[in-house]
Amino acid sequence: MKDYRIIEVKESILSDNDKDADELRKELKAQNTFLLNLMSSPGAGKTTTLVRTINMLKDEFKIGIMEADIDSDVDAKTISEAGARTIQIHTGGMCHLDADMTRQGLREFETEDLDLVVLENVGNLVCPAEFDTGAVRNAMILSVPEGDDKPLKYPLMFQVANVVLINKCDTLPVFDDFSKEDVVERIRMRNPYCDIIFVSAKTGEGFEEWANWLRREIRAFQEV
Amino acid sequence: MKDYRIIEVKESILSDNDKDADELRKELKAQNTFLLNLMSSPGAGKTTTLVRTINMLKDEFKIGIMEADIDSDVDAKTISEAGARTIQIHTGGMCHLDADMTRQGLREFETEDLDLVVLENVGNLVCPAEFDTGAVRNAMILSVPEGDDKPLKYPLMFQVANVVLINKCDTLPVFDDFSKEDVVERIRMRNPYCDIIFVSAKTGEGFEEWANWLRREIRAFQEV
Repeated sequence: MKDYRIIEVKESILSDNDKDADELRKELKAQNTFLLNLMSSPGAGKTTTLVRTINMLKDEFKIGIMEADIDSDVDAKTISEAGARTIQIHTGGMCHLDADMTRQGLREFETEDLDLVVLENVGNLVCPAEFDTGAVRNAMILSVPEGDDKPLKYPLMFQVANVVLINKCDTLPVFDDFSKEDVVERIRMRNPYCDIIFVSAKTGEGFEEWANWLRREIRAFQEV
Repeated sequence: MKDYRIIEVKESILSDNDKDADELRKELKAQNTFLLNLMSSPGAGKTTTLVRTINMLKDEFKIGIMEADIDSDVDAKTISEAGARTIQIHTGGMCHLDADMTRQGLREFETEDLDLVVLENVGNLVCPAEFDTGAVRNAMILSVPEGDDKPLKYPLMFQVANVVLINKCDTLPVFDDFSKEDVVERIRMRNPYCDIIFVSAKTGEGFEEWANWLRREIRAFQEV
């Protein structure tokens, strides 16, 4: 039996998504739930990163995951097996989530008292960056095989990120034209303030730093 | 001195993009120009694939390349150095190209008598698949590091493709959870008819088959 629900969400009819996103942030603060919006290209490693993150943090925080996909529920299956409460959101072809779609997903957790909800956004470096989901923080993953020039080509995604994870660092010997120095410099052109963490969701490299980033952010949010 | 132009295109005001795309196909047929729409995720290897393709075919066909990007002209620089006529299209934040935006780019080639024009679409597995650009054929690249489950998650992209290149096959030993059999089976779920070619733009593996695919399609188009 599947241990997750699948829901179809509809695009918001609200004209002012930014205002709605601010409303959702207030609602989440009232229930002390830290919402993280996780974005990346298709195949950058969002799901593998989440599985390892759940395993590291599930004894400290009550975690819920919303998997947003155009179709399929392969990720929801993987995530629910890792032990987090999971909702699969189908976007009906939409390339991003807005605040109201995110709220529709959150409702499915019902009365559960979650500390951390991660929205795994649709794999796309363009559109998700344009829509505030109501999240407290935006995280993005850039994987080494995608190349170190991506901050030049997809500026908004890097601008809106509070933290950038550079994933698949175990493959740096294979992708030897990827320069860690260049990617940091190019991210800094777009965003002087975000945190940048080099990780490998496969080997676990860098995950202690990433888990500490989350611990610090969640605690700061819940203590305000 | 730069050997390419940069133009800013505007989203079409036409409500019927499909009709406009059909018009553009007729215009292209009248001048015997084969337009290929090349789509993929960010970092799947569109530009590297194009550089190798240009080198293989530039003595047989007059080739023009339109690089569509939200920002930057790093790809146009690379492509123009490979010896193709190059136009850099800036989409002004748009996540895809429609037929009229494509036409705005094509105009910049002016009176040049091109056999093959490749539109390198914005790196995105979602939105570009929804808009007919007026191309004669759609090609898409899926790279091995992205994973073999992508046809499950991004169905429309695989449905509209006439040919799927599976790129970065030289990294199959590193990404050993990527199954060639599974990816073919999943592409076939979405599209029973497209051609599927395994390539490596880095090593050249599979490029004779890809060049032959293009030769066959261009000649068939020009002979009609």
